Amino acid sequence: MTNADPAPTFYRRELPEGLTAFASPEGRALFREALALGGMEGWFPLAEHFHTQAEPAFCALGSLVVVLNALSIDPARPWKGAWRWYAEELLDCCDPLDVVRTRGLTLPRFGCLARCNGATAGVRYADELGVEPLREDLRAAGAGGPAVIVSFARSALDQTGAGHYSPIGGWHPEKDLALVLDVARFKYPPFWVPVTRLHAAMLPHDPETARSRGWVVLDRDVTHEGGPHRVVCNMQDAVAATPALT
Amino acid sequence: MTNADPAPTFYRRELPEGLTAFASPEGRALFREALALGGMEGWFPLAEHFHTQAEPAFCALGSLVVVLNALSIDPARPWKGAWRWYAEELLDCCDPLDVVRTRGLTLPRFGCLARCNGATAGVRYADELGVEPLREDLRAAGAGGPAVIVSFARSALDQTGAGHYSPIGGWHPEKDLALVLDVARFKYPPFWVPVTRLHAAMLPHDPETARSRGWVVLDRDVTHEGGPHRVVCNMQDAVAATPALT
Repeated sequence: MTNADPAPTFYRRELPEGLTAFASPEGRALFREALALGGMEGWFPLAEHFHTQAEPAFCALGSLVVVLNALSIDPARPWKGAWRWYAEELLDCCDPLDVVRTRGLTLPRFGCLARCNGATAGVRYADELGVEPLREDLRAAGAGGPAVIVSFARSALDQTGAGHYSPIGGWHPEKDLALVLDVARFKYPPFWVPVTRLHAAMLPHDPETARSRGWVVLDRDVTHEGGPHRVVCNMQDAVAATPALT
Repeated sequence: MTNADPAPTFYRRELPEGLTAFASPEGRALFREALALGGMEGWFPLAEHFHTQAEPAFCALGSLVVVLNALSIDPARPWKGAWRWYAEELLDCCDPLDVVRTRGLTLPRFGCLARCNGATAGVRYADELGVEPLREDLRAAGAGGPAVIVSFARSALDQTGAGHYSPIGGWHPEKDLALVLDVARFKYPPFWVPVTRLHAAMLPHDPETARSRGWVVLDRDVTHEGGPHRVVCNMQDAVAATPALT
């Protein structure tokens, strides 16, 4: 055959059953309810900075861009023109972007990257903590407290793809639903998911071979000054890579 | 002097008086009121796709990216990887991006660019129409009808900078305010502005030397198939450039 079909391309994916699209009639009703119940206070700054991950492999970086800008953290170096602003290309202080592009980012290295850019970052593993600590962090984020970025297995939500990062846009207090601001906006819309199901999607499919996913609680680090602190990354890296030495 | 200071860089600008920031306490109250009054139905798809213009000079392209994605228009060609998706780099069918970068886009060429990418685009000049037709289009956009992108002079809103494009995120029916989703997110947050003031900011400072700004009403062109139709651009271009021939 000389006339081989070109590789297929895609325009979005249909959201699987059990997840509710943000702009659907049901999603709008959930938004109104959650807003009235005080679960969308964190939504306002995140809505200002919700963003499409710059490359198909950059979900971790794209999520961090949303939250660093929503936290009003000044990167202390220019983005483009005269403007200082977070975009994925500024997030190369832990791993080179080429490495992130091929391997993604583990949860501890994600935490390191957030910290070296001026955020506090509490990394939580779903298998060490139950669903209640996740709910507490989502409740606080919804009320306008520290932001939450989740790391979950798409397959556990019947979505295509593997591990994925995205920020949480709000929490529905009565129905216990989280609004996932999916940064792969070319693929899925933002969606509401039951918190118990989101927690289950963080647990390893096979605990013998895989590490648990989890979530990261982020706030502005008021002690941080200037641009990225690369030394913090390197220390975290060394500790993570050589646990037997401690 | 050999130790010249480097060129100054900026982290955002303060929003001038008379404009209300989206995430401020007053802005949140306006959002809740407008939502309850039915003026934020258009907000949901726009919030899903609100985006930072890719370059400091790309406000027209950045605004169009938001609306084309919010209208669920398939660009019919890949963006990155296997994904079809609108980003600024796909919007080169009327003027080369280098020309847009240096000269920006006039309102008629903006309309042409929207049309050749699969949107209907009604271009309105503020000096030909009063404030009421603008209000009617904002009312319809707020109610979930065709989207509106405005072209205004920043100076008339006491902002720094010159002409600027941004989509409208909603309309407050009782207070007659428009929510401008400023795509220069590195500079200004989304803001509420009185509709009369927004209309005045579209009028030429000196009608003898400057053309009026205005707004564009955009919807999905259901007759459009496939990728960009460059021939439409060229015809529009010819008509605009040689009005004496007709």
